[in-house]
Formats: sequence, structure tokens, C-alpha cells
Amino acid sequence: MEVKAFYWMGDHLLLLDQRQLPEKELWLELRDHREVAEAIRNMAVRGAPAIGCVAAYGFVMGISKGSDPEEVYITLSQTRPTARNLFWALDRMMEALKTGRDIEEEARKIEQEDLEANRRMGDLGSKLIHDGARVLTHCNTGALATAGWGTALGVIRTAHLKGKKVHVWVDETRPYLQGARLTAWELFKEGIMHTVITDNSAGYLMSRGLVDVIIVGADRITANGEVANKIGTYSLAVLAKYHGIPFYVCAPSTTFDLSIASGKEIPIEERSGSEVKEIGGFKIAPENSPALYLSFDVTPAELITGIITERGIISPVNKENVKKCLS
Amino acid sequence: MEVKAFYWMGDHLLLLDQRQLPEKELWLELRDHREVAEAIRNMAVRGAPAIGCVAAYGFVMGISKGSDPEEVYITLSQTRPTARNLFWALDRMMEALKTGRDIEEEARKIEQEDLEANRRMGDLGSKLIHDGARVLTHCNTGALATAGWGTALGVIRTAHLKGKKVHVWVDETRPYLQGARLTAWELFKEGIMHTVITDNSAGYLMSRGLVDVIIVGADRITANGEVANKIGTYSLAVLAKYHGIPFYVCAPSTTFDLSIASGKEIPIEERSGSEVKEIGGFKIAPENSPALYLSFDVTPAELITGIITERGIISPVNKENVKKCLS
Repeated sequence: MEVKAFYWMGDHLLLLDQRQLPEKELWLELRDHREVAEAIRNMAVRGAPAIGCVAAYGFVMGISKGSDPEEVYITLSQTRPTARNLFWALDRMMEALKTGRDIEEEARKIEQEDLEANRRMGDLGSKLIHDGARVLTHCNTGALATAGWGTALGVIRTAHLKGKKVHVWVDETRPYLQGARLTAWELFKEGIMHTVITDNSAGYLMSRGLVDVIIVGADRITANGEVANKIGTYSLAVLAKYHGIPFYVCAPSTTFDLSIASGKEIPIEERSGSEVKEIGGFKIAPENSPALYLSFDVTPAELITGIITERGIISPVNKENVKKCLS
Repeated sequence: MEVKAFYWMGDHLLLLDQRQLPEKELWLELRDHREVAEAIRNMAVRGAPAIGCVAAYGFVMGISKGSDPEEVYITLSQTRPTARNLFWALDRMMEALKTGRDIEEEARKIEQEDLEANRRMGDLGSKLIHDGARVLTHCNTGALATAGWGTALGVIRTAHLKGKKVHVWVDETRPYLQGARLTAWELFKEGIMHTVITDNSAGYLMSRGLVDVIIVGADRITANGEVANKIGTYSLAVLAKYHGIPFYVCAPSTTFDLSIASGKEIPIEERSGSEVKEIGGFKIAPENSPALYLSFDVTPAELITGIITERGIISPVNKENVKKCLS
């Protein structure tokens, strides 16, 4: 495994600062839950499963330093509102604490289980990628977004390792540029053929027959199979439908939120418009022009060909099949 | 008129370097056709009608300095392949030279006629913008892209001046960021309400009912009404169709190329991928990752609600109606 987003060091967390990639590989030393909360909020770490793992270790540090469990939970959870895995991991840690289990072991389990789920999804999902496929992906869903390996990018990785020749169209994924900065970096390290494109190129590539399959990750999936994911996912799904291209979502069961009936109820994070208007310190818009930064959008089930989970592939995507797969 | 892309000074051209906006208002002094060709190639000036005007003045300078007309024509035309107005303007200038007309006057006429066409399109098109409309636009089609006023943005400008309250969603328009850098700058100067968005947000805003109408420009329009325009236009048109949102193109008759039967024949410029991977000197992708920079895409007639020209609005868009409007 060449790429890893974080390492648990027994009493502190080493975190790769993803805001600096691909230019710099800078590791942050986080020593309490407040530092972890800040790293999640400012997106030094991102990706729903990675956020869940890192929050679990933040919980361990908070408790071991004697902080009040409720405060630790609230500090870590009030960082980013959309990704399900964050709340799932913190609930599990709180439950472990209350039932007297070893919380450090619980956090390690969360990390290990995520890695195993990714491997399993890679095996299942890679069957959907044919030899020679031109695969389009959005955002970063690789080792950097998870405990390792990756969800959607893990599927691509597995297909590649199984000897399938794939070419990946990498949506640059504005505004944080997870695709250009992180996914391209992972693919280059793995020697997987790829081309970075602007997000607005994807539709035209589809119209020219240059995209065989689309695969993306998820930040939260509802009981009826609606998917919150990085802004731009919805547009890709509509374009895929229009062109008859299979559109897959890949996410572990920990990303599902069965307490939510439909996508309308998912809280969608809105970040500061200033993060849109500046790239690496370079101003790309007039200072006084407002800008909108919606971090995520919601894609309805009818636009999704299938959802790849570690427990199987949900297809067609609907409430019954989600329930069947996860129960 | 507050915004102007260029001024003809009688013996040289003053050109606003659009690569520096909105940070700096830097004016270039161009003194021969080779300097004009370079400014078109490196996108100091862009926008199909503006390129046509500037090339005409470049032709004047080339001829007045004694260069061979064929060489002047070739140097200016072999700069950017897609925009129709460039070739249209150069053909007209060459014809003027051959028939002994005053070429400086001819260039001034091209500029004046473009401005008048924009005003006329503004009047015609503004009827399609209702009071309170949330209008989405892509790229820059304002005063900076033309002899003044603008095509699609001219329509918005006219609607605003007629007292209609409009709010403009400004696609940032990667990779050159014409929307964030230029359109937002023009709108701010005019006091027109707007919000800059990432290109990948447009679809989701449509799904949430926040877009009433989409209006874009064009770089070349074929005899059957297919439209080459800035990359991302095609995706917007598909998304508009899916959401039942009117999708208008606004371009003067000089952008039509009736010699071309369908969009497949339009040469689509591909620029260097390095222009995608770097923003204001800041590297956003690994040095060794390939990147694709298609400057334009092609939108079929069936996705276009209407084409606004200075001679009337073509709707529905088809070969017969294009012919009827332009003849």
C-alpha cells in the first residue's frame, strides 16, 4: 500500500495534510480531539470513510486525556454535516465507551473493517469494469478518502490489479480539486492510465462515446437509495442517463443512513464562497462578487445503475433492495 | 459603456489583457498583425466577435506596413480554429482590399456593426427574460467578448436596464475561468446581481428549481443549427432539457457558418493540458498526469430552445429556420 491518509501512533495521530497535495507531502501530528475536529473542518482530511476513522481516533484521544465524553462527541461531530460515516463512527465509539469496551481497540476495528470493506467492494465492483474500459470518476475516493484502498477508486484499482486495462477520466472536481490533486496523484503512483479533465468536459466526452462507465463514491445514502456525494455527481448522473452509460456508486454500509427516508432530509454543507474564489492564493473572481460553495448534491435512485457495497451490489436501487442488502 | 476589450488608435491597437483580469487592468499596445495574432493565440483577447474585430485591425496594420496580404491573412487566421468570426472578418477584409475599398474603414465598420448587432440582440432577447428571472450563463459573452455590450450577457444587460430584476448564476467556466474572472467583473461593474458557481453546481441548482433560463453565446453555428461554444455548454443543454428549462444561444449572424452542414465538421480546438493543470502559477495536478483541454463542445439543435440573432430569433432550431432567418 503506497498511499495512506493517516496513521494511529498509539497516543497521537499522524495525518497527511491533503490540502498540500500533490505539491507537498506534509504530515500533521494531532494530539487531541480538538485538533482532529479542526483537521476535519478545514479539510486537511476528507472523504467520508477517512473522516469516520479519524474521528474515532480523535474520540480515543479526547477520552484518554480526561475530556467529558459528551463534549468530545459534540466537538468532533460539529465539523462537517453531510458525511454519514462521521456520526456513525462517533455513535459506535460512544456506545463502546458506555458498554466498557476498549475504545482504542474499537477505533482500530473501525479502521480495519473499512479497509476490509474496501477490498471486498473492489472485488465485487471490478467485475463491472470490462477490459479496456474508459472509466470516469469524480472527486477522490481512493486510499486518501478511506482507511486505505478506496471505494470507487478501489474498484478501479482492483480492476487494474486483476490485469484489466483501464483508462480513467479524472474530473478535476472544483472547488477543492480532489480529482486533479488527489485522484491523479494516487493513479500516477499506481501506474494506472488517466487523464485529468475539467468537470464541464465530462458530458461532451460521453456524447463522443469516450466514456464506458462512471463510478463515484458517496457521503450519505438514504433508506430509499438517494445519494449525497460531492457537488457535480448529480449532473454526471443525469448526463449518464441521457447517454445510456452505466452509473455506479460505491460505498460501504457505514455510509447508509436508514433513519433518513429521502435525500431532501440530508443536510447539505455550504462552505464559504471565498474557497471558490481563490485557488492556491490566486484570486479568480472579483473580491465583491458573491460565490456559492455547495459541497454536495443529491442524486435520486432512478439515475443510479447500482450501488456497490461490501455486502453486495444493490440494483435496481430502491428501498426494498437497500433494506435487503443491508439487513 | 464602462467595459471595452480594445480601442483602435488609428495606427495601433490598445488591447485589454484579459488574462490579467480581474486583478489587473493591463493594456497592451499592438503595432502589427503578428502581435495581434499572438494576442489571439495566447488568449489576451478572446470571445468570437472580439477576435473577429481585433483580427480586422490586425489586417489593417499588416497591410499598412507593407506585408504580403496572403501572409497577413494566414498569420492571423492560424491562431484559433473554432470561432467563425475570425475567418469571416478576415475574408471580408481581404475582399475589401481586393476591391479597393478603404480597409481601415472596413475594420471600423466590422466593429460598429458588431456593436449594433449586440444592441439589437439585447432588445430581442431581453423579451425572453422575465422580471425576477434567475438566469444561468456560461463563459463570458459580454463587452469583453465583443465590440461592446455583448451577446448573451448583452441580453442580460438589456433586461437589467429595462428595469427587470435579474439574478445571474455565473458558471466559473474552467479552465480559463471566463465566468469567474470576466463575467462577474462585468456584472459587478454594472450592478447586476450575480453569484459565481463552480461549473459542476449548475445541474443541482436546476434540480432545486433555482434556474429559470439559460443563455449562452456561440463560437460557430452550422447550417442546421448546431452550436460550437465553450466547453461545458453541451452539458448545460442536456441538463436544461432534463429539467425543462429554456436554453437559448445568442450570437450575431457573423457566427454562422452555412458552409458547414453539421457540428461534426467544426474544428474543435485542443489547447495544452498544462493550461488545465496550473491556475495562476499554482499547480493543481501532478506534473506527470496528462490533462485534456478541449476548448469547445458542440450542442445539437434539438437541445436548443432558440437562437437569438440580430435578424430575429430562430425557434425551433432547424436548417429551414436558420436559412429563413439569415437570408
